[in-house]
Amino acid sequence: MQRLKLLKAGWKLQTGYKGANHVNKSALFSREYSEGPSPFGLLFDIDGVLVRGRTPIPAAKQCFRKLVDHSGKYKVPVVFVTNAGNCMRQTKAEHLSQILETEVSPDQVMLSHSPLRMFTQFHKMCVLVSGQGPVKEVAHNLGFEDVITIDMLREAYPLLDVVDHDRRPKDTIPPTKGLRKIDAVILFGEPVRWETNLQLIVDVLLTNGDPDNNWNAVQYPHIPVLACNMDLLWMAEAKNPRFGHGMFLVCLENLYKKITGCDLKYEALIGKPSVVTYNYAELLIRQQAQKLGWTTPVKRFYAIGDNPMADIYGANLYNRYLQTSHKAKVQIQAKGGMDSPTESVSSSGQGEADDIHPEGCSSILVCTGVYSKDQEELPAGPSETVTEQKIFHGHRDFRFDPSLTQPSFVVNDVKEAVELVFQQEEWPLE
Amino acid sequence: MQRLKLLKAGWKLQTGYKGANHVNKSALFSREYSEGPSPFGLLFDIDGVLVRGRTPIPAAKQCFRKLVDHSGKYKVPVVFVTNAGNCMRQTKAEHLSQILETEVSPDQVMLSHSPLRMFTQFHKMCVLVSGQGPVKEVAHNLGFEDVITIDMLREAYPLLDVVDHDRRPKDTIPPTKGLRKIDAVILFGEPVRWETNLQLIVDVLLTNGDPDNNWNAVQYPHIPVLACNMDLLWMAEAKNPRFGHGMFLVCLENLYKKITGCDLKYEALIGKPSVVTYNYAELLIRQQAQKLGWTTPVKRFYAIGDNPMADIYGANLYNRYLQTSHKAKVQIQAKGGMDSPTESVSSSGQGEADDIHPEGCSSILVCTGVYSKDQEELPAGPSETVTEQKIFHGHRDFRFDPSLTQPSFVVNDVKEAVELVFQQEEWPLE
Repeated sequence: MQRLKLLKAGWKLQTGYKGANHVNKSALFSREYSEGPSPFGLLFDIDGVLVRGRTPIPAAKQCFRKLVDHSGKYKVPVVFVTNAGNCMRQTKAEHLSQILETEVSPDQVMLSHSPLRMFTQFHKMCVLVSGQGPVKEVAHNLGFEDVITIDMLREAYPLLDVVDHDRRPKDTIPPTKGLRKIDAVILFGEPVRWETNLQLIVDVLLTNGDPDNNWNAVQYPHIPVLACNMDLLWMAEAKNPRFGHGMFLVCLENLYKKITGCDLKYEALIGKPSVVTYNYAELLIRQQAQKLGWTTPVKRFYAIGDNPMADIYGANLYNRYLQTSHKAKVQIQAKGGMDSPTESVSSSGQGEADDIHPEGCSSILVCTGVYSKDQEELPAGPSETVTEQKIFHGHRDFRFDPSLTQPSFVVNDVKEAVELVFQQEEWPLE
Repeated sequence: MQRLKLLKAGWKLQTGYKGANHVNKSALFSREYSEGPSPFGLLFDIDGVLVRGRTPIPAAKQCFRKLVDHSGKYKVPVVFVTNAGNCMRQTKAEHLSQILETEVSPDQVMLSHSPLRMFTQFHKMCVLVSGQGPVKEVAHNLGFEDVITIDMLREAYPLLDVVDHDRRPKDTIPPTKGLRKIDAVILFGEPVRWETNLQLIVDVLLTNGDPDNNWNAVQYPHIPVLACNMDLLWMAEAKNPRFGHGMFLVCLENLYKKITGCDLKYEALIGKPSVVTYNYAELLIRQQAQKLGWTTPVKRFYAIGDNPMADIYGANLYNRYLQTSHKAKVQIQAKGGMDSPTESVSSSGQGEADDIHPEGCSSILVCTGVYSKDQEELPAGPSETVTEQKIFHGHRDFRFDPSLTQPSFVVNDVKEAVELVFQQEEWPLE
């Protein structure tokens, strides 16, 4: 029975996929409920799903009106999982509340860097942070105690940043003040003046954290680099996609390689499509479920996004992780064992039982953002993918599995996505 | 006799090279003079040879004092060949006059973009220019009639440049004004705010010159791209090399490739080490020789630089071009033919006789810039090169020939370089 259920609710919907180009209101898979509808949770991407740039997508407001009851309480746990990172959760929650005309709490918002809270081994190190906005405040809020910004580095080593003629030292050469040694580099999001950040980060990597040293490419691997938000492209108001932090990473990787001949190494890549991000989202969904007074664990996640390489790939990768985890558990139970499955990693560190993990995560692709039905042909079969012209727009370090870009469903917009989910789960939405 | 002379004065100084690590005052090759010393010309690189950042290198002032007579007239034709490009010749000449305490005329200065004057086929096209400083004025001075800057493009399409949160459209979405179609892109030098130029150039390339169009990677090859100054790194006051325009090109090439899967194509790569740059320098040297009242053509060039991949590679590549050219001429003469050698390209377009080209160009590497004897081991033999750790720091599109990074001579600084040349040529310097 357990096995049948897993097979039926499996992450990879081999059957029925061809028909999913438009909203397919017939069930693409069925679930069995012995005691009424199962509890589920919703993960919403923001850019390209709820907004484009600063402009709300009309369907978003309409569907959020239905997601709350008359007192503003959500009917199901809702978490916003964005790869944006150059801001605070509070700011993002306020912005969402405004555009959705529905109260969104900071606890429901997860930015690309949120999982860094769990990387406690780096919290006491001296870290160089790159991004824009309140990067220092963001870093402190995540638990980092000793934070150096690019601007601090520029000020301490005034001869390093000379691409802009107007920022070069004028008549006298300012003295180098120096700074404590940097132990790790954290890339929060796309900075401004990429030339400055690229030059200074490369300086730090080639000098083992102290730009007073000579460049020494022999120092390899370099000090740890942690990067949040790999999104190559995202949709704002412009008709064509705009550059995201992933593009900055492409620059950094290639400049480092051009100088040293070696690959830039990441200690961690955080944000969708990393599993670590979904582990953290799971924690937030669980907290939301508790707030709603739910006593049964959430059984299924629905991740709604516009980017095949981030939202869909990530949700499917996480689903695969859940399936592997459950399968291992089933095998152990069948053998009469009591150990936890080896591949199950507890994200919250609270050592909770494995059965509080959801059974699976479905991915729903909307056409209001990066992905558009007009521009791109949908795959004719499971061997093809929705990435444009089969060009890999994911990150260099993700071993690309084309099958993971296949969404469970494709719908026009977020309103259709939510309606589909409630219909699938046989929950009332109106 | 002619053949013997060519062999002796050949560009590749296979013998005696090992001893060239320090100033080797014994003649590394000998030349035969039937009627007194031969006329020669000097090509000086600027950054890392005469200055580091804004700081003059002391040896430069000393040696320039000797290069002019009591009335300030140069003893031999002198031309400054820099890969810098974000300024006007006039400005560069004034700066040089000041730091060398010797009058330098704008006619003696050649910037990386100077050869664009010869690219008349692009002069009537609508060109997008990228760089910093007076790019529009530079473009007009070179002969371009219809010039669009990145700032003009930003203003006409206000939704395109959104990496910097503070420059994103605020409350209302500004209207797209549009612009005439762009026919070609000219990259003068490293801009500021690389993210803006990278995004907008990619937009122009993917929309066939009209950012109102949808991105269409099928449009390949894209509209022509001409790039000046491929220098990856250069030496300013900082102890480690700084990013040059070559690094910006690495970013652009890799972002274009990441999005489209195709290679960015260059219509032309201008500046050292391109032969087109030396063709143009030859023209300037000839003009300087005329000013000095010389009636015999300049027989040999000495190119003094700090960058093995730009100055040395370029001088050697040009020397190889001259040798091939002369060899073809000798063969034709031996056959009694009267045609010009097929590989000889007239840079000035004046259809001058081939024998006004110099016979060869020697390369002299100084240790005051990118290349340093302390940091790098000199090659033990002709199969090894002076590039660091054998990592290719040249441009992607230059088929790398390691032998071309071997300088004819290695000296400490520019003063030693000039002394060596005058000794070689048996000309009085004092």
